[in-house]
Amino acid sequence: MKKLLIFLLLPALGYSQLNDSSTISNIYKTALTKSDCYETLRYLCKSIGPRLSGSENADKSVIYLEEKMKSYGFDRVYLQEVKVPVWRRLDDAKAEISTTKQAVNICALGGSVATSAKGIKAEVIEVQNFDELDKLGEQKIKGKIVFYNRPMEATHIETFHAYGGAVNQRGSGAAKAAKYGAVACIVRSMNLRIDEFPHTGAMRYDHNYPRIPAAAISTRDAELLSASIKKQSTTFFMKFNCDTLPDKISYNVIGEIKGSVYPEKIITVGGHLDSWDLGEGAHDDGAGCVQSLEVLHLFKTLGIRPKHTIRAVMFMNEENGLRGGYKYAEEAKRLKEQHLAAIETDAGGFTPRGFSIDAPANVISKIKSWEYLLKPYGLHDIAKGGSGADIGPLKAPGISLIGYRPDSQRYFDVHHASTDVFEAVNKRELELGAASIAALVYLIDQYGL
Amino acid sequence: MKKLLIFLLLPALGYSQLNDSSTISNIYKTALTKSDCYETLRYLCKSIGPRLSGSENADKSVIYLEEKMKSYGFDRVYLQEVKVPVWRRLDDAKAEISTTKQAVNICALGGSVATSAKGIKAEVIEVQNFDELDKLGEQKIKGKIVFYNRPMEATHIETFHAYGGAVNQRGSGAAKAAKYGAVACIVRSMNLRIDEFPHTGAMRYDHNYPRIPAAAISTRDAELLSASIKKQSTTFFMKFNCDTLPDKISYNVIGEIKGSVYPEKIITVGGHLDSWDLGEGAHDDGAGCVQSLEVLHLFKTLGIRPKHTIRAVMFMNEENGLRGGYKYAEEAKRLKEQHLAAIETDAGGFTPRGFSIDAPANVISKIKSWEYLLKPYGLHDIAKGGSGADIGPLKAPGISLIGYRPDSQRYFDVHHASTDVFEAVNKRELELGAASIAALVYLIDQYGL
Repeated sequence: MKKLLIFLLLPALGYSQLNDSSTISNIYKTALTKSDCYETLRYLCKSIGPRLSGSENADKSVIYLEEKMKSYGFDRVYLQEVKVPVWRRLDDAKAEISTTKQAVNICALGGSVATSAKGIKAEVIEVQNFDELDKLGEQKIKGKIVFYNRPMEATHIETFHAYGGAVNQRGSGAAKAAKYGAVACIVRSMNLRIDEFPHTGAMRYDHNYPRIPAAAISTRDAELLSASIKKQSTTFFMKFNCDTLPDKISYNVIGEIKGSVYPEKIITVGGHLDSWDLGEGAHDDGAGCVQSLEVLHLFKTLGIRPKHTIRAVMFMNEENGLRGGYKYAEEAKRLKEQHLAAIETDAGGFTPRGFSIDAPANVISKIKSWEYLLKPYGLHDIAKGGSGADIGPLKAPGISLIGYRPDSQRYFDVHHASTDVFEAVNKRELELGAASIAALVYLIDQYGL
Repeated sequence: MKKLLIFLLLPALGYSQLNDSSTISNIYKTALTKSDCYETLRYLCKSIGPRLSGSENADKSVIYLEEKMKSYGFDRVYLQEVKVPVWRRLDDAKAEISTTKQAVNICALGGSVATSAKGIKAEVIEVQNFDELDKLGEQKIKGKIVFYNRPMEATHIETFHAYGGAVNQRGSGAAKAAKYGAVACIVRSMNLRIDEFPHTGAMRYDHNYPRIPAAAISTRDAELLSASIKKQSTTFFMKFNCDTLPDKISYNVIGEIKGSVYPEKIITVGGHLDSWDLGEGAHDDGAGCVQSLEVLHLFKTLGIRPKHTIRAVMFMNEENGLRGGYKYAEEAKRLKEQHLAAIETDAGGFTPRGFSIDAPANVISKIKSWEYLLKPYGLHDIAKGGSGADIGPLKAPGISLIGYRPDSQRYFDVHHASTDVFEAVNKRELELGAASIAALVYLIDQYGL
């Protein structure tokens, strides 16, 4: 009966469409029942742990994923040398609102210098943005701690927009405050919830001004501190130790299945292997690594021989340098590699929503013409947009850059915080993500872009 | 500049469409910044707790939500008497695979009789379905414990389909096994994960056969037990106490805002106030209650005076009797109330996906014509389908029944288990759900169906 139905439908749908639909269905079924990407993530998180660039754990994760790729029987598995910065957190930071004696949960931002051994105590000035800071100027700022307290804007439906609207405080806040003689800078954590967890993340100094200690406090404590400042002149104390060592050799981990028709043309899928040091780098971006790996593994398991070479790349050092991304693009250029497309998964292991495409209109139209094959799996949001940090340096005419977009609601609950642990990842959501990317890679491989 | 742009767009979009778009945007913004539905849920879960029909907690929750509705200044708040069954779990069940001395996590199913005080110990026979049971017949089943071990099918993308394919084991397993002389029945928990938590849920006896004790074991333990049975004849021990008291008076809690143009026509939004007793009834269905409440609250907060009467109903006894749903429909009929639509939210407080509509094709087309207003909020899945258990009894020509459909991936991780606690609900996901339903109610109220 089923066969008859397929036969009757053939003239309407066409053989290849039925074939695509059935292959994609098999990709999802296999991901949901036979994938071990969740167990690979468990190992990365629980047996290795956080993987900050240059750390021993980062080294371990390189070895582990290289071995994993070899065990999957990929046609080629190799390491790509990358020189990475080495920043280390040397203690648990301590802080309090001295005026009210309230303890504050704080963490040094990645790249910050340490406070002195005795810590820093000074009056704290709250600002919402750099304009306010500029208006206060040296007269009001000098000798004080600047507190950036502009919350992520909850009204954005897509939480990455809220992040984009707030993160300059973390990235450039210390440099801007140092310009006016601030002695330190604290930032409200990039978190939409009010909770007790500080979220770290990268910051950059300006070589024209002193390097002042920079830290993030939990959103709960940002509210407390702000309330105190509204009532009275408030003194804040903070103390932490961290340092920066010389750059160190690390690696991008790369595996590929050779194309059967166009071996010289490459479709790359990647996530980043390094993570911040506070949690386990589960959603950011252990999830993206194991999904990328699983894309190739699904092709192997299902016996799909791709026409193009498909490559999984575990980029090193996305969080505090992007050296892996730059290195990969540099090597691609040097070796005259032809990339057809690069897909990044670095928005968490959440339930699939779609893809964001950085490519000309005709490419976007082509991908959108596959929507009917992808919608049954919740992939409704296929639109022009940014892709991912690691694949950004590949940008060139003829290379389509694509970001996998899972649901974003829960991402900033855990992003760069101690809450980004294996338990925060749902097995099915992770697997559906891997299958979604594999389905897109399959269609790109079949029909080009 | 913005004003000019709106002016220029007016002829193309039309004033009312712009107005709808802006009202819906305000609904979401308000839900994400001013709603207290998350705090109401916290109170339901943490200060009251599980709310099994007939329990003291169920009584408390009726009083709490009636007061809450009054505090919101709804036009009318009232209780609707419902006679509910009273089943009680009187201890923590104990069980072990006697043959291997492995302890097993088990819970009585709702409605089950107790085991004897000493417990039941017998050989256990595994089956996957009722066909297998029928084939074994009285000769192989008599005096034994029947173990239903058909897993939920992981390959369904929508997990409710997987639930639908497995739940007859829980609902009818004991009755079917008793027919062949089984002394008890155990069921693999309705859970897609392998973990240690047993999931309860309703079961029904057949009055033609003995009432035998029925319980669920965790998926992890179902795997253990099955492995033991494959190796050897396996004896299982279980012991638990529970009872059923006479029916008791309880209530549906109802609040409404009177329609300004068609006060006699009603749009109902509801969830169920009762829950199973193992967790806190957070996703199932505290989330649906506080979302329904929030829909009316959003109308009040935004000063939207609806044309039709909009009503929030907290149904009592969905889990083990559906008495609240039947009572509501019965009263609606008796009072000749005209329902335009009824919307149920009972699929968890997860990120919005869409609506499932039980109505004629022209109604579905009308709702789909609003898709362009709803898609920006992730509401892509608007399709014909089932609605909800509590509103089911309202079914009649002219009444559109609609189910709110959030993402389903994580629902069965917590459904009817001790894991269904407040912490499993994400604040934004909950609020987005409330806003999504409010947006649909707004459109139905504006344009009818």
